[in-house]
Amino acid sequence: MNISERIKDLRHQMLQLGWDAAIISGTDPHGSEYLPERWQQRKWISGFTGSYGTVVITHAHAGLWTDTRYFIQAREELEGTEFEIHPLRVPHAVDYPQWLAENLPAGSVTGIDGDCMTYSQVEKLFASLQANAGKVVNTPSFPDTLWVDRPALPLSPVFILETQYSGRSTEEKLTWLREQLSSQGCSHILLGGLDQVAWLFNIRSRDIPYNPVAVSYALVDSKNATLFITPGKVGDNVTRLLREQGVGIAPYEAVTSVLEGLPLESVFMADGDTLNYSLFSLLLSRFGSTGVKDMPSPVVLAKAVKNPVETEGFRKAFLYDGLAMERFFFWLEKSLEQDVLLTEKDVAKKLSWMRSLSPDSMGDSFQYIPAYGANAALPHYNYLAGPGSRLEKKGLFLIDSGGHYLYGTTDITRTVPLGPLTPLEREDYTIALKGMIALSRAVFLKGTKGTHLDMLAKDPLWRHLRNYGHGTGHGIGHFLCVHEGPQDIRQTWKDQDLLPGMVTSNEPGIYREGSHGVRHENILLCKELEENGFGSWLGFETLTLCHIDTSAILVSLMERGEIEWLNRYNRRVYEKMAPFLTYEESRWLQEKTAPLI
Amino acid sequence: MNISERIKDLRHQMLQLGWDAAIISGTDPHGSEYLPERWQQRKWISGFTGSYGTVVITHAHAGLWTDTRYFIQAREELEGTEFEIHPLRVPHAVDYPQWLAENLPAGSVTGIDGDCMTYSQVEKLFASLQANAGKVVNTPSFPDTLWVDRPALPLSPVFILETQYSGRSTEEKLTWLREQLSSQGCSHILLGGLDQVAWLFNIRSRDIPYNPVAVSYALVDSKNATLFITPGKVGDNVTRLLREQGVGIAPYEAVTSVLEGLPLESVFMADGDTLNYSLFSLLLSRFGSTGVKDMPSPVVLAKAVKNPVETEGFRKAFLYDGLAMERFFFWLEKSLEQDVLLTEKDVAKKLSWMRSLSPDSMGDSFQYIPAYGANAALPHYNYLAGPGSRLEKKGLFLIDSGGHYLYGTTDITRTVPLGPLTPLEREDYTIALKGMIALSRAVFLKGTKGTHLDMLAKDPLWRHLRNYGHGTGHGIGHFLCVHEGPQDIRQTWKDQDLLPGMVTSNEPGIYREGSHGVRHENILLCKELEENGFGSWLGFETLTLCHIDTSAILVSLMERGEIEWLNRYNRRVYEKMAPFLTYEESRWLQEKTAPLI
Repeated sequence: MNISERIKDLRHQMLQLGWDAAIISGTDPHGSEYLPERWQQRKWISGFTGSYGTVVITHAHAGLWTDTRYFIQAREELEGTEFEIHPLRVPHAVDYPQWLAENLPAGSVTGIDGDCMTYSQVEKLFASLQANAGKVVNTPSFPDTLWVDRPALPLSPVFILETQYSGRSTEEKLTWLREQLSSQGCSHILLGGLDQVAWLFNIRSRDIPYNPVAVSYALVDSKNATLFITPGKVGDNVTRLLREQGVGIAPYEAVTSVLEGLPLESVFMADGDTLNYSLFSLLLSRFGSTGVKDMPSPVVLAKAVKNPVETEGFRKAFLYDGLAMERFFFWLEKSLEQDVLLTEKDVAKKLSWMRSLSPDSMGDSFQYIPAYGANAALPHYNYLAGPGSRLEKKGLFLIDSGGHYLYGTTDITRTVPLGPLTPLEREDYTIALKGMIALSRAVFLKGTKGTHLDMLAKDPLWRHLRNYGHGTGHGIGHFLCVHEGPQDIRQTWKDQDLLPGMVTSNEPGIYREGSHGVRHENILLCKELEENGFGSWLGFETLTLCHIDTSAILVSLMERGEIEWLNRYNRRVYEKMAPFLTYEESRWLQEKTAPLI
Repeated sequence: MNISERIKDLRHQMLQLGWDAAIISGTDPHGSEYLPERWQQRKWISGFTGSYGTVVITHAHAGLWTDTRYFIQAREELEGTEFEIHPLRVPHAVDYPQWLAENLPAGSVTGIDGDCMTYSQVEKLFASLQANAGKVVNTPSFPDTLWVDRPALPLSPVFILETQYSGRSTEEKLTWLREQLSSQGCSHILLGGLDQVAWLFNIRSRDIPYNPVAVSYALVDSKNATLFITPGKVGDNVTRLLREQGVGIAPYEAVTSVLEGLPLESVFMADGDTLNYSLFSLLLSRFGSTGVKDMPSPVVLAKAVKNPVETEGFRKAFLYDGLAMERFFFWLEKSLEQDVLLTEKDVAKKLSWMRSLSPDSMGDSFQYIPAYGANAALPHYNYLAGPGSRLEKKGLFLIDSGGHYLYGTTDITRTVPLGPLTPLEREDYTIALKGMIALSRAVFLKGTKGTHLDMLAKDPLWRHLRNYGHGTGHGIGHFLCVHEGPQDIRQTWKDQDLLPGMVTSNEPGIYREGSHGVRHENILLCKELEENGFGSWLGFETLTLCHIDTSAILVSLMERGEIEWLNRYNRRVYEKMAPFLTYEESRWLQEKTAPLI
């Protein structure tokens, strides 16, 4: 069955149900970024594979709402279908609630799958449609009836992340969480975010590609803690270990009935921005508005501020990750010298294999982006969607990749010259690097937000009238999701301080459609520097260890301080790596890390 | 009568009225920053003369809420009274609505003068007190009964600012405003901000020190425009000129009765953030919530985006202003060389006189801040509050000043060495200057906000672990208030783009209590640069023309680009000024503006 048949079937069903519009979200009941096959309903209806996007079908229109990262990819993937792209994160963007309000008749009916939308999203939709007496109907899993071969729930086994890696036992975390509940006058908390559940209970699994989490919910009150999870995923040993930490287990589907059985005087802490609409409205209807405190889950911030064991684990992860990267680049250079034919797929496979050799390697942390030449102009290029380009001995090659280890998660982008470069490639390479260096060197007062720091990465680019359309930095989980909140570094305002212990990426880029793309990405650990009469000062430690190619740099564009930073960085990489490398690799890296001037 | 007697009297009145608390705001019915004597009730009750602060009196407490700018001044001015200072704009600040909620008994009554608080302020107060069943009672002008010698309304004559200066006739402005009203489905707009009224009707007066405005309201509908103003302030000629532009005149106090007489189906555009509570609630009670659109007045943004005539006027204003500054500095240097005894008062008077010699000079734009040595550590030092220091031939002298001209308004701060400096003074001088230069050189995309740009001024200071507690930049009116919105440049988020035509200050500083203070302030005009594939680029033209002293600079702290900027700036100052200077002055300025290296 192809896309147009699926749309036709859905419209037929909409007609029977009296719906004017149906929303098919691009996420799961847990608000995940990467999805189990079961919840790839947006891909199923549209063919679009990006990590962010919402489909809206009316009887006259099929639309995909997505942001700047995916404009080019969506255009390609949706070609030949009736889907139109509605751009988000651009000036005067019209999001789908507003579009529906403007395009549906009075008294319209919009069908949603409330399991796969957050409470806040649906509230926004309600508010938009209200003016014109529009209704919203929640029909959980409505695509089920059309999607005949819809995959089942994933069944990967759950394992425990030991305290030597997590740094904090589940018992300790539960004690802390119960203090949070009581200080807010709450009796219960329901967690839907899979990384929150995994962090709290120190469990990991492989239910979702690249994200080592288990499809589950967590319910905690002053005495009990329950993990809702598909039976069969948790072995006897894990069950016993969890019980020792005070965690009981219940079937995944039982979450509804358990909530419905709780005393009416319960007061829930729940986050309407992340909990799905079906569960959040169940809480509201049972416990009333005074029984539900809609607030950010305290787990999100606690998870983002890494403890000393996690921090030390990250340092180890970036050491082994850097070794894999350096060995990969050594291999790549030698292979090209010998005119070995290499495609983007070949090199992605090789790098993934290099990483897998590290101790306690736990797989890739996201789908690599090995992008040669013009492909790198797509910041989120999908090398598996087409044939994949062959690497040639000229131009720039960008590779964005990362790995999971029991002791941490990595994310790194390097752009390297494979041969002669154009002047514009050299300029873009150098200018994007200046942005990365500026943010790395930031010194800032406590209370500074990511939006403030974003300007540091942008300024060197802006002075040359260049820019990038994606965020500058995202939080990174500890052997968890490679993208995590609450902090980020981007222009959009977010009222979240950068705090000591947070691990955040730093990845400015410059992209030229049809020509080339550059991105440099290091990972930064926020640290306390000192206190003086002006306040408490913070800064960053760069965790990433992998040389930055100096041969592509236009030295005339570099400031003295930038060159000093770069030379110091590369020297540190060499010193950290050399003891682990072969003589040949080490000689090679010494050359690569020689001072720029 | 002294402060403690006034507090006692007020408490007696509060007891009779059954009030638990009384709020005495630091503003007038128009939300002005500088105030006619009549509305200096906060100074009357407390003695505090700063431009920002709110007094709250309960039977057990007298508190002043003010921000970082005024902590030191407030401490001095409130000494010997029972007033306690409640700091704002610091981490964990507790504003007075929250403080009242926490400190008043259940069912409390708080008295306010609703003429001198905005609707939004009172709404916030309501919301805070509601939880504990607290009431708010609006008693307009309640201090009247205690303040026996309260000054009357000011009576300065009104004059017309001709189109050769304003660039846009009142008729044109009214046509534009009526389009705004109709596009928002509104029939009327009521303007309370004095600079908005002045801008719209192209009138000026001297009712308020430093702000060339008239105490008045403006009411505009599709056919009529009315200026509410005290009779006798507007002569026959001005009345005729206003009538020719379609503006009628009514007595100031008549605004209430006129509003009460309007058709019930009127729909008002009114800004709850700036219109006073008494008038806004009158609108609500007469026209209902559907008859009042609470939104920012479109006049605020239109006023901030200067038209070409105003822009050209600003350039002229900064030329003449710069000449006055240079002649002043020349005089100052020669006077000190000859050991003339000079106090801060002497030099302020001299500079004000120098300005008054410029063509169409219209007085000072704010109370000068001539601050020698340790006095400069107070960013808003009031040299008239004490004896005023004598200038010595050592250390730094900071002077923040500005003037009004028919063709524009200026604001400039220079810090100059009067003799030998300490190493720390030189460092602070240089580092604050680097911040000022960085912002001057900014290049940014359309859509950038002041909060983004703030980081540019901060970064050079932060790298040296130094900071300042005030904003980096404020908008400046065209022969209007020296502080105007909607744009500013500061850390606090404000969702307002910097737009071509906006005029904004750039004034980083470093302050060391008991020792010295540095501030460098230039004024920037936002301009379009060019468009390319990445977007529309904006930048700044520096309007201020007055040399920056290079002898105080620690050259080793300066980057190449900063030195280039500074040399270019000083050369431009010399070239613009020289034709107007005497031979001796010109020789002196040539030396002052010689390249740094």
